[in-house]
Amino acid sequence: MTTLGEVAAAANARLQGCDATTVITGVAPLNGAESGQISFLTHPRYRPFLAHTQAAAVILSPEDAAYCPVPALVATNPHVAYARAAALFVPTTRSHGGIHPTAWVDPSAQVAASAWIGPQCTVEAGAVVGEGVCVGPNCVIGEQTVVGAETRLVAQVTLCHRVHIGRRVLVHPGAVIGSDGFGLALGPDGRWVKVPQLGGVWVGDDVEIGANTTIDRGALEDTVIEEGVKLDNQIQIAHNVRVGAHSALAGCVGIAGSARIGRHCMLGGGVGVAGHLEIADRVQVTGMSLVARSIAEPGAYSSGLAVEPNRLWNKISARLRRLDELFRRVAALEKISKNGSI
Amino acid sequence: MTTLGEVAAAANARLQGCDATTVITGVAPLNGAESGQISFLTHPRYRPFLAHTQAAAVILSPEDAAYCPVPALVATNPHVAYARAAALFVPTTRSHGGIHPTAWVDPSAQVAASAWIGPQCTVEAGAVVGEGVCVGPNCVIGEQTVVGAETRLVAQVTLCHRVHIGRRVLVHPGAVIGSDGFGLALGPDGRWVKVPQLGGVWVGDDVEIGANTTIDRGALEDTVIEEGVKLDNQIQIAHNVRVGAHSALAGCVGIAGSARIGRHCMLGGGVGVAGHLEIADRVQVTGMSLVARSIAEPGAYSSGLAVEPNRLWNKISARLRRLDELFRRVAALEKISKNGSI
Amino acid sequence: MTTLGEVAAAANARLQGCDATTVITGVAPLNGAESGQISFLTHPRYRPFLAHTQAAAVILSPEDAAYCPVPALVATNPHVAYARAAALFVPTTRSHGGIHPTAWVDPSAQVAASAWIGPQCTVEAGAVVGEGVCVGPNCVIGEQTVVGAETRLVAQVTLCHRVHIGRRVLVHPGAVIGSDGFGLALGPDGRWVKVPQLGGVWVGDDVEIGANTTIDRGALEDTVIEEGVKLDNQIQIAHNVRVGAHSALAGCVGIAGSARIGRHCMLGGGVGVAGHLEIADRVQVTGMSLVARSIAEPGAYSSGLAVEPNRLWNKISARLRRLDELFRRVAALEKISKNGSI
Repeated sequence: MTTLGEVAAAANARLQGCDATTVITGVAPLNGAESGQISFLTHPRYRPFLAHTQAAAVILSPEDAAYCPVPALVATNPHVAYARAAALFVPTTRSHGGIHPTAWVDPSAQVAASAWIGPQCTVEAGAVVGEGVCVGPNCVIGEQTVVGAETRLVAQVTLCHRVHIGRRVLVHPGAVIGSDGFGLALGPDGRWVKVPQLGGVWVGDDVEIGANTTIDRGALEDTVIEEGVKLDNQIQIAHNVRVGAHSALAGCVGIAGSARIGRHCMLGGGVGVAGHLEIADRVQVTGMSLVARSIAEPGAYSSGLAVEPNRLWNKISARLRRLDELFRRVAALEKISKNGSI
Repeated sequence: MTTLGEVAAAANARLQGCDATTVITGVAPLNGAESGQISFLTHPRYRPFLAHTQAAAVILSPEDAAYCPVPALVATNPHVAYARAAALFVPTTRSHGGIHPTAWVDPSAQVAASAWIGPQCTVEAGAVVGEGVCVGPNCVIGEQTVVGAETRLVAQVTLCHRVHIGRRVLVHPGAVIGSDGFGLALGPDGRWVKVPQLGGVWVGDDVEIGANTTIDRGALEDTVIEEGVKLDNQIQIAHNVRVGAHSALAGCVGIAGSARIGRHCMLGGGVGVAGHLEIADRVQVTGMSLVARSIAEPGAYSSGLAVEPNRLWNKISARLRRLDELFRRVAALEKISKNGSI
Repeated sequence: MTTLGEVAAAANARLQGCDATTVITGVAPLNGAESGQISFLTHPRYRPFLAHTQAAAVILSPEDAAYCPVPALVATNPHVAYARAAALFVPTTRSHGGIHPTAWVDPSAQVAASAWIGPQCTVEAGAVVGEGVCVGPNCVIGEQTVVGAETRLVAQVTLCHRVHIGRRVLVHPGAVIGSDGFGLALGPDGRWVKVPQLGGVWVGDDVEIGANTTIDRGALEDTVIEEGVKLDNQIQIAHNVRVGAHSALAGCVGIAGSARIGRHCMLGGGVGVAGHLEIADRVQVTGMSLVARSIAEPGAYSSGLAVEPNRLWNKISARLRRLDELFRRVAALEKISKNGSI
């Protein structure tokens, strides 16, 4: 049973007009909350719902607190406060250790007593699974791979051989870490010769890796995901990429080989980054843009084009092909006008 | 043994010049069909092959029927008729119920007697698997998840906890349904705080979900895929998205959080949709386009650019960067010309 | 224990100033190599590191050999030579045959005595697994599917029913081969009718398939990946596509139905190819480009746009929408100037 006082403590929020002993059963949106549930106001979009909310209490900013018709949990950063409060209501995943009878763990693997290995898992020779690790069903942990304490592999995760995973890392289903990089040498006969991928993958602490995201191992040195990086679903990270600490990459981003992403960067959905380039710290790239050269300055960058009605777009793209010609035509007109003949 | 009469009945087609008792062994393209196989003409592209086909019978439109040298199965919509006829020749997947000895089913899970749980599967606590469900090898069904009658998970599918799957849903290998949404709050120290994803996923009846497609659970309320939606492979659906009934999304589409797609929409391959926007019913978006604003009117929309020879494209894209300047130069010329000085 | 002589033989390189009996323990970059390790110089980018390398020997070109301060392994194609040499240092994956006790193999499947079936695998009825095949943990091999000799499925691979995999094929984790193509017929009521996918997938010899890549089965005839093709991660290949021999596709490429890619083609990351078109041999397409029409001539093609600072880009894309108007305005000015009135 969670009380409002406990919620306030977790959220590090100030109680306003609250009875700290009120029992809270869960969280809900402003317009859906019932008595016993807390709610939150973290975006102006939802301010209209504040006046009529039925929530037991609302997490909001000092500015909004004045207009709160119900008890308030006041926080300077309501979004963070909400995140911490909501964590109290996450269904707890199994915490006690053990190995499920259907799992297969190689005798030479080391699994901490407090770690859980779920059904149908495979843990290969020499793997090391730390204290409090939770490995969900049907995961594979490859040879010599190390999984840091309190890390969770949700289900169907594949960690290939000789991969290092930090502490408190969360890996979602279908993610693959440590697959071979795309290393090819072109033979004289036009056939590709595979370049062995002898490096590994190093994932820092507090990283989150989305469903069906892939991170290739390095050709010789490691691919590196620094601490606190957050990767959404369906992302492709090629060999020898380095993603700087606390950067967040949205779904379907693709990073080509040996690119270096700075710290505290944000890449929008579907962004592509070419190989062997460097992106500075605190760079934001909007969705579906292509980073084809290094970026030295922090700030926002874009190259995505938004849809237009099909007929208009076809006209635009046809004209675009003749853009070079248009520049020349305008230059010609300018020449005439300068010559005074016009 | 299937007869032409049975094929006609399944296809709801009119027999023309056919012996209904002819035995049909399978389907094949017009130019490849042998006696005993039926074929079809659903696209003008293949009309030239009609004259010389060896098929036992051809499914086609009343217009084309006149030119059919062999028995015909005449249908107003030959494509649909073909789809129904071909279904007779799909190799039947196992229909009788049971649980494979290598599968692990939690004692508290409810599996209907007529459902099949395949090898190496995991069915977690409180899961409910309906009548006639077929769960292929190495699938995971999470806690409290409900799978509707006659649904099929082909193989290696992951349904996370508290997901609702409707009836007659088909999910292809590697698909992940119910992974955490990408919810992050930015702390004052520049570190990300995870926003717990407390919602679920609701998938309606007759939905098809492609290989390695991912559908995230909602932050508080459910992510919703309405009835009859068809999702191709490698699609990413973020948290709290709603995809309207009978919409079809091609491969590699990415939908950002809280976007609402209308009913009967069609999104081409690689299309990206930004978050918190709405797309009306019956909107088509062509491949690799970016929907960055809401679309209120039905119709076709585009922003994809087609390839040109590399040298020409480099010239165009360099000019594009100076497009704003060009507009100003043209305005200047127009000013001069208006002033009559030219 | 590997000697320099053995490395030279594997690399087909000429020893210069070397003692062939020197023992080599591994490979490393020029600036990181220690005595006992070989290194390589395959890109001018790294030439500055040559002078001070501590490597036991360096694989390089005849031109660079003159400047090599340490023993050299001289090869006309150092990249290929390096690839062959490095292969000596790949940790060997299990080579002896057998079936892991936790694997499930249908009694009607044929598994060669020298093949290995790893933990938690499923091999379904009628599957045929050739000599020396290595099937890693948690893989699924579907009914009637044939896996050629010496092929390796790393882990969590899904081969659906009736798929043909050639010899020496390497398939990385999470790849799905033989899932249903996206075949839909639109019914009169606006509901989609599934078009049964009755074809298969044919994968030639020496193909490599990346992590979480998907290859759909054909509608009637097979989807075909010809010999020597290299597919990176997260690629989507739709039904009835044909990829020509020795073509290389980078991550996140998407190929729509029935497209034909030529031989020795190279597609950059995130490239999209529309359906029912043909790309000639030896075509290169740069990253994030859209191939919307057939390409008949070899060469390089592009349509990707590189990022600009956000404010500049917003201006450019706004102007782009008025490009058609600009062409008309310029034409008007030209008319005036021709009329001599200017």
